[in-house]
Amino acid sequence: MYDNMNLTGQNFIAGKSSGQGTETFVAINPSSGTELQTYFHEATSEEINEAVTKANEAFLVYGKKSGKEKADFLDAIAEEILNLGDSLIERCCAETGLPEGRITGERGRTMNQLKLFASVLREGSWVDARIDTAIPDRQPLPKPDIRSMQKPLGVVGVFGASNFPLAFSVAGGDTASALASGCSIIVKAHPSHPGTCELIAIAIQKAVEKTNMPNGTFSMLQGKSVAVGMAIVNHPLVKAIGFTGSNKGGVAIFNAANKRDEPIPVYAEMGSTNPVFILPNALKERGDEIAQGLTSSVTLGVGQFCTNPGIVFLNNDASVSGFQKKLSENFQQVDANTMLNSGIKSSFDSDVKNLSNEIELLAQGKENNEGFKGSAHVFKTSAKNFLIEDYLEEEVFGPSTITITADSKEELLASAQKLKGHLTATLFATEQDLKNHTDLIEILEQKVGRLIINNFPTGVEVCHSMVHGGPFPATTNSRSTSVGTGAITRFTRPVCYQNFPQDLLSDELKDKNSLNIFRMINGEIKK
Amino acid sequence: MYDNMNLTGQNFIAGKSSGQGTETFVAINPSSGTELQTYFHEATSEEINEAVTKANEAFLVYGKKSGKEKADFLDAIAEEILNLGDSLIERCCAETGLPEGRITGERGRTMNQLKLFASVLREGSWVDARIDTAIPDRQPLPKPDIRSMQKPLGVVGVFGASNFPLAFSVAGGDTASALASGCSIIVKAHPSHPGTCELIAIAIQKAVEKTNMPNGTFSMLQGKSVAVGMAIVNHPLVKAIGFTGSNKGGVAIFNAANKRDEPIPVYAEMGSTNPVFILPNALKERGDEIAQGLTSSVTLGVGQFCTNPGIVFLNNDASVSGFQKKLSENFQQVDANTMLNSGIKSSFDSDVKNLSNEIELLAQGKENNEGFKGSAHVFKTSAKNFLIEDYLEEEVFGPSTITITADSKEELLASAQKLKGHLTATLFATEQDLKNHTDLIEILEQKVGRLIINNFPTGVEVCHSMVHGGPFPATTNSRSTSVGTGAITRFTRPVCYQNFPQDLLSDELKDKNSLNIFRMINGEIKK
Repeated sequence: MYDNMNLTGQNFIAGKSSGQGTETFVAINPSSGTELQTYFHEATSEEINEAVTKANEAFLVYGKKSGKEKADFLDAIAEEILNLGDSLIERCCAETGLPEGRITGERGRTMNQLKLFASVLREGSWVDARIDTAIPDRQPLPKPDIRSMQKPLGVVGVFGASNFPLAFSVAGGDTASALASGCSIIVKAHPSHPGTCELIAIAIQKAVEKTNMPNGTFSMLQGKSVAVGMAIVNHPLVKAIGFTGSNKGGVAIFNAANKRDEPIPVYAEMGSTNPVFILPNALKERGDEIAQGLTSSVTLGVGQFCTNPGIVFLNNDASVSGFQKKLSENFQQVDANTMLNSGIKSSFDSDVKNLSNEIELLAQGKENNEGFKGSAHVFKTSAKNFLIEDYLEEEVFGPSTITITADSKEELLASAQKLKGHLTATLFATEQDLKNHTDLIEILEQKVGRLIINNFPTGVEVCHSMVHGGPFPATTNSRSTSVGTGAITRFTRPVCYQNFPQDLLSDELKDKNSLNIFRMINGEIKK
Repeated sequence: MYDNMNLTGQNFIAGKSSGQGTETFVAINPSSGTELQTYFHEATSEEINEAVTKANEAFLVYGKKSGKEKADFLDAIAEEILNLGDSLIERCCAETGLPEGRITGERGRTMNQLKLFASVLREGSWVDARIDTAIPDRQPLPKPDIRSMQKPLGVVGVFGASNFPLAFSVAGGDTASALASGCSIIVKAHPSHPGTCELIAIAIQKAVEKTNMPNGTFSMLQGKSVAVGMAIVNHPLVKAIGFTGSNKGGVAIFNAANKRDEPIPVYAEMGSTNPVFILPNALKERGDEIAQGLTSSVTLGVGQFCTNPGIVFLNNDASVSGFQKKLSENFQQVDANTMLNSGIKSSFDSDVKNLSNEIELLAQGKENNEGFKGSAHVFKTSAKNFLIEDYLEEEVFGPSTITITADSKEELLASAQKLKGHLTATLFATEQDLKNHTDLIEILEQKVGRLIINNFPTGVEVCHSMVHGGPFPATTNSRSTSVGTGAITRFTRPVCYQNFPQDLLSDELKDKNSLNIFRMINGEIKK
């Protein structure tokens, strides 16, 4: 077991610790507001350049590893994370204020995610191998032999989120998909949980050594300033960015990446308000149950989920006041809980205060001024107001939601039509409700990455079919997902080989299908 | 047969002709420099808005058509293009100066492309259907039923190129892939061949009617000004752009699209210089044959191909001077031929003049001042010079190439390393050469979309494995291709359905695999 006392506060550069910078920062325990031990060294320009340069050198080796080798590496990372034992759980709880059960669960999720990508690598068909064989005597021109497959882009910069210190951080989804695809990575550690990041970096480094991967495959840089992140985004050898965080941060990175001499793809997941539509019959039949579930979903993890349901549309009928009453009663029972850091707490307080000044506060949960504790809020307004006020669609990061009543189906559809891009949209509906609202579903299908019926949007299953993404401003690239194995191609591009001798082709493209993968041969998909 | 005399010069908006604008322009016959009949009406803001609005309405219907229905539509377009008969060939030759054989061949290519996408639609597996079934009794939380597949983005704006008036224009690759994916389209007609565009628009409109597609599925707008194109790019209902053309045009569209309130993906293919490496043994063994082939490749279509080999690297040994002599003799025999328009001709003249001022002109082809005829040029310089001068890598659009001699393998590798993104890289090599240059191949693999051994890069096979793309500045999105059926997903995104009843799912995602497509069910790919 790794001893927390031994945290170095250094950057991890291609297998070596480095703390050249004089700027340091500490982590704060959000439960108490007190400083945690260990000074973390902000990475210097030289350290950033060294990390990226070594990542690029490593890529030339790592990018050619077989699926099986990469799978063993990912499995080893999962194993080494578990080997960190209670040190990881303790430090992570201390840095995030999240309860032990949540962190233990998130560790399992993080490990399962790595293993799921490993299983995709072992199966191997994800590379989309395509072979069109030559027809030398074709008229008027011979047809050449052409083969293509997905290849990794190069060095990827990964920016983790504060709200999932394991599953969306140093060994999180973007790390798993980038490493699975064959890219080397530079992780920018999140300054809210730098010690957790260091521990995970140690685990990844052990896995690098255990499975004989080149050292530069993984580096991690500490930094509280915007400068460290921007230096990664602007480094010419960095070829793509994965980011989970705020709209402000994501858009800044997206704009910087587009202004580079060589623009690079940015997969920024920037959260959303996740509209929920409770349709009339469902509301009537099980309004109390939905109110209970909604309260749990909004306040789960102190509301600090990208998929938090922040706006709830209702048809203005006789059931609404009863539902709002029940919801209010539920919210009033909710304890104030510790938010991730002081910045998130003060933004949340400011956001709910602004909302309170503009629309009616239905109810508030318990208050508690110890540490950075957020108090649950539920508001109400009309669809008429939603249709004219843009701020109502903006994400409030924390345990808050707004019920919005529409006086007609037209207003409901207009509200749906007004929505920008979101990660999810949810319908609570009976069979009859769904029949009556196919038009609503059609509209919502254009707006989100995931459509849900009679489940809550929180709880993002890590599986092959998950799409955790959606049109802007939910993400900067709706054509990908940041959760689930579909993410493996976000850091790849197709490369085509014309008239290549067999021995220069990757195994996936050789005549002999030694990997036994599905391939498209002259248009026919087969093994 | 459609009578050329009947060209209307109008815009095609959702099945209706419209020429509200007072601004008009004419096409010029580049063989003679004379104006062709018919005034074409620049689309007005109102017309552009109407076309996009109707495309968006049509999308809600067209986007749900089955693969078979869309396939029939694409096949019908191919058929209606053929039905245009000689009128199309005549007008196209008159507007482009390209010979009849080339245009007839390009018509076949355009038709085959549409039919190849139709075959992919009929097969159906392209949607990447993924199904993860529910586990209601999973602990600690039930696993929901989740399914996902690729869905079309919405209205796509298509900008054709001047150099392929059929295959990369109104019914070209981007049109075929966008319509195949289920998107409705707005095509900006190319002002160099507006009559050809009108004829093809008539064919597509006939196919729309014949196969009962909604009228707004296809619109085409005429325009010589930048304003028409930019209005399409900036329209909030347009969700993606396909473009083939100049770096200046592509980058302007890319920047505009990124600055929108909702940034949208731009697939701009902006050409490249397509480096060729003639390795020592190949040069020695078959230098004359390569010189002959290179001359043909550089001057094919008056050098107006995106895959034109514009820089040719040689190892500075005893064979080089003989090769350059042979190349010079070949180039001197090449007739001057008509370029696509006066702008291209004057840019080409200016580019080769600038090159002549900087590096040595090895040889020039025949000259002819009739119409807009371009004369072939071959230059020489050293890799030392290439390593310090950036302009040598810039595309000269026309029949021109530069031989670049490296004094050492290190210089050759450094030159390869200096390359920016290109569509292709080509090696002429013996088996031994390839063994001696695996490092070169590794470098080039990072730089291009297509690697070629012992073929010339011109000639882009339309097939499933083709990658016509590459890192910036060859394109604005290296993760896609603009030729071949892999392009079908450039205008789609994954959408995920959680806990949906069977009757609300697309056929591709229902339990019963009625379309008999390959799907990933709980991680296993099967039919």
